Amino acid sequence: MDCLINGVHLTKLKIIPNEKGNVMHALKKSDENFTEFGEAYFTFVKKNVIKGWKKHLQMTLNLLVPNGEVKFVLFDDRSDSKTFMQFFEIILSQQNYYRLTVSPCIWVAFKGIGNGDNLVLNIANIEHNPDEAINCEISEIEYKW
Amino acid sequence: MDCLINGVHLTKLKIIPNEKGNVMHALKKSDENFTEFGEAYFTFVKKNVIKGWKKHLQMTLNLLVPNGEVKFVLFDDRSDSKTFMQFFEIILSQQNYYRLTVSPCIWVAFKGIGNGDNLVLNIANIEHNPDEAINCEISEIEYKW
Repeated sequence: MDCLINGVHLTKLKIIPNEKGNVMHALKKSDENFTEFGEAYFTFVKKNVIKGWKKHLQMTLNLLVPNGEVKFVLFDDRSDSKTFMQFFEIILSQQNYYRLTVSPCIWVAFKGIGNGDNLVLNIANIEHNPDEAINCEISEIEYKW
Repeated sequence: MDCLINGVHLTKLKIIPNEKGNVMHALKKSDENFTEFGEAYFTFVKKNVIKGWKKHLQMTLNLLVPNGEVKFVLFDDRSDSKTFMQFFEIILSQQNYYRLTVSPCIWVAFKGIGNGDNLVLNIANIEHNPDEAINCEISEIEYKW
């Protein structure tokens, strides 16, 4: 994955087929990129709606899409980063089932793509704290959505 | 909640309305009943289908239903328990949004109720290990589903 921004990890996860309803992995304590558990919360994003941009200063995100289809765009404006000024984009869904791990200080925005419920689970290393996040308008970072 | 089985906790969780898509709490490190993070995984359960019975010997479950509607039934066969031979049942959904925390050694089964995707997130204190769980057929514990 040479297109990944420095500090971003994409982990292919297992979906275990079951005729009563599938089981899908999310995150284990022993997983390579796991550090600590702080909080898990869900975010819905409606079709064609964009949430972002947001940059966390302390939180590492573990993003999963168990239902629907969500496009994530990441942007690196860390001047000391190997991937300075680079974007990374990916659409996550059950069909493209990965865990997207995002280190602090990377800009994140995401857009609902699916017709039904577009559901994101974030398993973060710290609890929600508005003081450690910076928001900017979607137009402030130029990206062709 | 006098109907609860001993070792079972039901926690009302916040849904934060947002016109772009709601945010729903799941679990925080500082929550009263939180002990440890071991693994998070999703389970789907199709409409009118029952998964269970299963009894974990070490795992504490934190069960959430972000999408759809799922009926959980718990059964206590611990002879030293205050709630020996009692059942507890609850339907979880966005409309009845709780975290259901289940201590080890309580039987659990659940049934899909909703027409669409019935999605369960379990945030467990240990990683999945088939050796710490006992399964029995749904007919082996008599309950009028």
